[in-house]
Parts: sequence; C-alpha cells; structure tokens
Amino acid sequence: MRILLVGAGGVGGAFTAIAARRDFYEAIVIADYSAERAEKAAAADERFTAAQIDATSKDAVAALCREHRITHVMNAVDPVFNMSIFDGAFEAGADYVDMAMSLSKPHPEAPYEKTGVKLGDEQFAVADRWEAAGRLALVGMGVEPGLSDVFARYAADHLFSEIDELGTRDGANLVVTDDNGNEIFAPSFSMWTTIEECLNPPVIWEDGEWFTTAPFSEPEVFDFPEGIGPVECVNVEHEEVLLMPRWVDCRRATFKYGLGDEFINILKVLHTLGLDSTEKVRVKGVEVSPRDVVAAVLPDPATVGPRMKGKTCAGLLVTGKGKDGLPRKSYLFHVVDNETVMADYGHQCVVWQTAINPVVALELVARGTWSGAGVLGPEAFDAVPFLDLLTEYGSPWGQKELS
Amino acid sequence: MRILLVGAGGVGGAFTAIAARRDFYEAIVIADYSAERAEKAAAADERFTAAQIDATSKDAVAALCREHRITHVMNAVDPVFNMSIFDGAFEAGADYVDMAMSLSKPHPEAPYEKTGVKLGDEQFAVADRWEAAGRLALVGMGVEPGLSDVFARYAADHLFSEIDELGTRDGANLVVTDDNGNEIFAPSFSMWTTIEECLNPPVIWEDGEWFTTAPFSEPEVFDFPEGIGPVECVNVEHEEVLLMPRWVDCRRATFKYGLGDEFINILKVLHTLGLDSTEKVRVKGVEVSPRDVVAAVLPDPATVGPRMKGKTCAGLLVTGKGKDGLPRKSYLFHVVDNETVMADYGHQCVVWQTAINPVVALELVARGTWSGAGVLGPEAFDAVPFLDLLTEYGSPWGQKELS
Repeated sequence: MRILLVGAGGVGGAFTAIAARRDFYEAIVIADYSAERAEKAAAADERFTAAQIDATSKDAVAALCREHRITHVMNAVDPVFNMSIFDGAFEAGADYVDMAMSLSKPHPEAPYEKTGVKLGDEQFAVADRWEAAGRLALVGMGVEPGLSDVFARYAADHLFSEIDELGTRDGANLVVTDDNGNEIFAPSFSMWTTIEECLNPPVIWEDGEWFTTAPFSEPEVFDFPEGIGPVECVNVEHEEVLLMPRWVDCRRATFKYGLGDEFINILKVLHTLGLDSTEKVRVKGVEVSPRDVVAAVLPDPATVGPRMKGKTCAGLLVTGKGKDGLPRKSYLFHVVDNETVMADYGHQCVVWQTAINPVVALELVARGTWSGAGVLGPEAFDAVPFLDLLTEYGSPWGQKELS
Repeated sequence: MRILLVGAGGVGGAFTAIAARRDFYEAIVIADYSAERAEKAAAADERFTAAQIDATSKDAVAALCREHRITHVMNAVDPVFNMSIFDGAFEAGADYVDMAMSLSKPHPEAPYEKTGVKLGDEQFAVADRWEAAGRLALVGMGVEPGLSDVFARYAADHLFSEIDELGTRDGANLVVTDDNGNEIFAPSFSMWTTIEECLNPPVIWEDGEWFTTAPFSEPEVFDFPEGIGPVECVNVEHEEVLLMPRWVDCRRATFKYGLGDEFINILKVLHTLGLDSTEKVRVKGVEVSPRDVVAAVLPDPATVGPRMKGKTCAGLLVTGKGKDGLPRKSYLFHVVDNETVMADYGHQCVVWQTAINPVVALELVARGTWSGAGVLGPEAFDAVPFLDLLTEYGSPWGQKELS
C-alpha cells in the first residue's frame, strides 16, 4: 500500500503520528498546499516523503498519484476540496478514503423542512462508476462519521434484532486556559467548520426519508460516560444520518452535538449579527468574510492542545429491541483523554480521535480484511475486526446499557 | 452667532434639520471629512455653507474658524476627535459645545475598582485657561449627557432639599424590521460606540469619590413611561456620573442603560470572542479591526429610521427628600416617538433626540440667557429656561412621581 495523504494540518499531522507506529504500508506521500508544512510532517519517518499540492485541482491530485504509484488517497483537508481529490484519485486508478463527505446545499424554498443537496450526494452520484471500475471509495471514515458508523453496524449485527433509532451523540468536558490559568473560549475544532455544521439545517432520517429542521432543534441533555457528565446536545447536520440508513435498518437516524449552552448561545449571536456569513464585506478599504474574522480572533485549534484539559467522547445511542426481543438502549462510545494523547502523541484529543480511525481502516484494507468496490460507508464492512484493531492500537471502545 | 458644525453624520444631520427652523444665528458652516456629505447637508438652508475638514487637526479647526469668523464650534463627531476640535476652537477664540467628553482610559492594575483617566479629564485639565480667557466650553450637551444634566439641576433647585441618588436611566422599545417585515437586530446608535461605552468599566460616584465596577453590573428592571414599559438596565460608563457631582450635591450618581437581555448577551459574546477588540488582526492577507467588522455587518444606524418603530426615553431618576423634607422619588424624562420625528424631520428618534438639545442650548447662549466662562456642564446653568425652550420647540419633557 502506497498512500497519498492530502493535508498536513491538525488531523493530517495526527494521522502521520499514528501511522508512523504501524507497518501495513510501504510509503506515505504527505502533500499540503504549504510545502513547508508537508516537509515538517514528512521528517518524522523514513517512509514519508513531502509534496506540494493544490487540492482544488483534480489533475494535480491524479498526477501526484501517478508520480508516486499511489494505491490509496487519504483525504485530510476541508470537505470543500472533496470532489477534486475524490475525482483525481479515481482518474489515477487509486482507492480513496475521507473523513467528511461532499457538502450540502439547503433547499431553496424550505431549508428547514426539506433537504436540498445532501451531504455526500455528489459522491454517491458516481458510485456506479467506482463499482464498475472495481475501485473503493471509503467515505466518512473519521471518528464521526466513521467510528460512529462502525458502532451502528456492530449494534445491528450483534446487539439488536430491531433498531428504532441510531442516534450519534458527541460530547466533551474540555477546558482551555490562558497563560494565567484563566478559562478561555477556544474551540478544539475549526470554528469555520463548526459554524458551517451547526448553522446548516440539521438533517434527520425517519420512516424511510430524510428531512431537515431549524438549527439547534430538539435540545436534549445527554449524560456522557467516564466522568464527562451531562451536556446539552442539539441536532446538527452530519454524515451519519446520510450513511447509516443506507446499510443499517433503522426507523430513525439523528446526530446530536454536545455543544453546551455557552457555545450554542455564541453561535446564535454570530448568526443574529450576520458574523457567520462567508460573503465578503467592505471594512475600511479592505474586503473580508466575517466568518474568517471570527476564526482569526480565536486561538488556532491546532495550538490549544497543551493548554487543554478534559475528555472528548464520540458515540452512538441505539434504541430498539435486543436479540432477545426485549427493549434495549445501549450507548457505544470511544473516549479520549487530552492529557494522555498529548503526552503520548503530541496531538490534541479531538484531532487525534478523528485521525486514528482512518489509520485502522487502511490497515484492515491493506490486510484484505475489509474489501469492496463502490462508494461505501464504514457500516458496509464488518465492525468486529475494526473494533478489535482499535483496541489493539491502545484505544479501546466502551459500551453502556441504559435500560 | 456664527456656528462651525463639525460632522454631518447622523447627529450632525439632525442638528441642521432642527436648526434650520430657528433664527438665533447668522450662519452655520457645516464641515465634514466628506465634502460631499457636508454639501448635501448645507443645501437645506441659505444660511448654511459647506467645508471639508480633517477633525484630527487642531490647526485645521482653528483655520476654518478664522476663515469664517466663527463664534461657536459645535462638535458632532465621535469623541475620539474631541481634543483637536476643543483645542482648535480655543486657539481661534471661539466658544465650544460638544455632546460627549474626552475619552477615558481604564486603571492599569484595577480596571474594575479604580478609575484611571476619567471621561472629560483632559478637558477639565485646561478649564482654568478657558476661564481666564473668558471663553465657554459647554461640554456634554446632547441628550445624555445633556438634557439628563439639566434635569439634575432642575431637581436640585425646584424639587429636592436633599438628593441621595442622581440616576440617569435610558430605555427604549424600538424595533427594526427588514423588507419582509421580520424583526432584525439593528442598533439605533453606532455599534462601535455602544461597544466602547458598554464594555468600558462603568463609573459610579458615591460619598465623594468615583470608582468603577465590572461591565453590566447592578442589573435592574426599570419601568419606562409612555408605554415603553420594563427594560433591563445595567451600569454603563457615561459622562453624567462625572458631570453632575461637580455642580449638584448628591450622595450617589449612576448611569444605567436599558440595553435589554438580548443586547447585553450579544455584547458579552462579542467580548468573550474578542470581537470587541479594536486591534487589527490578520485575516487571509488583509488587516482589519474586529470591532469595525462587527459594525460593518450591521445595518447603518443612519439608514434604519424608516424601518424602525417605537419610542426612546432619556431621563433621570432622583431619590432623596423633597422640599417638604419627606422622602421623594421622581423620574424626569423626555420621550421621542420615532414615527413622529421621521415624519416631521426625516431623522430617526435617537439621533434627533441627541441633536435637539445643543440647538436649544446654543439659542439660550445666543440670547444671553445662558452665559459663563470655563469648561462647564449643562448643570452649571439655570434649567428652567432650557426646559421651557425645549417645550417651545414642540418636544416637551415629563415628570413622574414614583413614591
């Protein structure tokens, strides 16, 4: 296996740190728009080489694949670049893995009732071509989507005879402090993407169809495990809702993000003022996008790791009937403690938790344990070898019965 | 009287519209950084002429005064320009009127306990020079400060034998709608200045000294008259607290602004994120001040008038003992209805209410009813002729006994 990693940012950097300890591949070409950043990441292992890339160019992606005889393209950049990387990999005859799917567009008339272009629609539209060519595009293979989807398949195969709801629930108790030890507001993930996710109309699957609601709908306090405790969660647009029902039978699929009161309030205020907008405004002789300004005033999520404490939890709440036919409610989860992974890998927990899952998946593909053709989500594959290998990596998952 | 009006923005424009109906002056030179804006305002009356000015230059202000034989300089620009206009007027031998005082600087070590440089300190520092030269600088002569200070003098002279607190209370029930009739967030006053006022440490006068508190301190719901109703008010840094105790005996002086829950929350979020900052940040190749971006995404307060409904109230809550020695609590106030002044003057109520007061004051000065030398606040003069002339202008004040 010869991997082209596109993107040496937060998640890309953590991917290389985790992959450096494994031996399932022959080479990783680390490509970034910044050659300097690529070179810095490539210095960590002799199987790594650096390259510069413009991820908006399908041809540049294909050319780099051919130059380095790439067998698998790992997409670790913002999903806005998905289609050029996805198409470039196909053109060069490489398999493809990403951690977020092609972007949605709200319904023009009824954005908070009906879906418009859904997450992943552009990628699923060409699934036939991938299948006919015998090539694999493994989409949404981070932690959420990704591990959450593996949990869905595991629940269907081994825990439930009938599933009512597959409800991804994500929450954390992370706290960032400034140099004086005072708690500050510093998102652990890209503020630009968080605004995008949280202000897009959340999508829900119910009784065989997808529909949307207003942002922040159906607030619910979920009690997260391992000391994280109760966090207010709201519906957010996320890939799981589009992926799970394609392979796993369920009446309902939802994604709720544990933003907490403070973050929800901040996002609402940004929206009220129009500071979430990506359209440029003229400000004293220059033009800027308000959302870029919001991202610029906050600490860079890639730099907050050393000043952050707490745990992050990704998981899936499954309700329905157990194998015995009795009502069952189980939460399958994966918790990462920031101080542990900072000490062990030098990467903060949120990006580290995202990055470990595609490394595990690629190792299963390299072994031949996972194989297939087409545009497939993680739930299209057997969950057990994935969960076992994740545990072998030293990062076990958990299960909690709630009724 | 020959007036130099510096600033043809919202308040300056309303000043000319009100002054155009009066005959106490010979000429008004309307000067603005934008010659076009000055010319537009000057077209309204044959006694008006337009000029271009750089208000940061004391010499430019003095030169314009000499060129047009100016007797009174009316400052209607942002208080950041106060000192050059104030000094330029003095240099040219003109009297001076403003509606906000020279800016404060927080105490370097204890910003929320002790005062640093106070509002108006720079102006009061040279009061002796103005007095010795026999020149008048009438400072803080808008609505708040301004009319509120006139109320303080009236209360002391005619209603109270002993004053416990002079508490300015400002509130409104203004609502702005978009083209589809949906309520939108659109401040009726400069967002830049509102952030400055509301996030600076609020100053309080008590038992003979000034001190500061944290922003948004001492929240109180005040029931405003004429149908406005209850609004949540918080302490805000304002000139009244610095002016009133210099001329009117009182145990305590405060200023509380009826921001309402929503606006307070918005200001807190902007502060949490650092979007209130005036220091430039680098955003994708350009440099901008976050606070300028916030102001730029919101509708221009000068343009919201036609889409705004409701009333604004400026007033002074006075507690103490009446002339009869019994406990007394009176609210002296001035309410302006937006639709009324939009129809009559074409200017929205908040800027109109600010602008009418210096016109009244200048008319009293022109008549010789108000006279003096030095740096003086509105409470240094007899309140009765002011309140009578305000009523004669068609905009009466009110009084309400609260106990």
